[in-house]
Amino acid sequence: METQVKMTTQEVANKWQSMCQQGQNLECINELYADTIVSKEMPGVPYGEVMSGKENVYNKSKEWLDSVEEFHSGEISEPIVAGNHFTSKMTFDVTFKDRGRQQMEEVAVFEVKDGKIVNEQFFYDMEGMENM
Amino acid sequence: METQVKMTTQEVANKWQSMCQQGQNLECINELYADTIVSKEMPGVPYGEVMSGKENVYNKSKEWLDSVEEFHSGEISEPIVAGNHFTSKMTFDVTFKDRGRQQMEEVAVFEVKDGKIVNEQFFYDMEGMENM
Repeated sequence: METQVKMTTQEVANKWQSMCQQGQNLECINELYADTIVSKEMPGVPYGEVMSGKENVYNKSKEWLDSVEEFHSGEISEPIVAGNHFTSKMTFDVTFKDRGRQQMEEVAVFEVKDGKIVNEQFFYDMEGMENM
Repeated sequence: METQVKMTTQEVANKWQSMCQQGQNLECINELYADTIVSKEMPGVPYGEVMSGKENVYNKSKEWLDSVEEFHSGEISEPIVAGNHFTSKMTFDVTFKDRGRQQMEEVAVFEVKDGKIVNEQFFYDMEGMENM
């Protein structure tokens, strides 16, 4: 009988940071996200505030990545763990295929259950993504 | 004509941390919160997931503070600012009047607009607040 050891929230957080820093965003979803993942953006975003399900969240990330012409830089701050949640600041400097270069930064919060990410939520400025 | 300089998100974050560390939680609401503040807890909490308005949020905090018999310790981590949001880890060790001693930790996220906190959201373990 296989006994799989579930990762702690700290271990998931470390692995998430490491994979994002290496640009393995899609692999990260495959490996660390629960099938029931719920992903929340800011209210009012054109592509929908709430998305559920691993395949949908994977496709959303893939679409975003595909819209990028060039990654100039990015930073993922050391995750801070509190109970079964962790938070991190994500910073990007990217040129999009259809809307030029943007500097973005956001707070990300993740909830971990049974060694998998079950909720993620992103917080950012809706008024001036370009002017941070 | 009075020209009031609005605090930046970093300044609000620093002041929030400083006031919380000094136990000035209610003064903090009075001084830093917008009248339109929206406060979000975890889905399923008995006292309501969303609360709006400064007076209601003030009363919610006051009720919580009034329910505490003794504060043993608490920590407010250095706020991390991203755009017009900031995040911090809050840790408490308190004895409640009606349910004994609890260690709690949570991720808090705040949104700042025009120098005031307009949104706050707290993330914590709903399954085992006592066992962190």
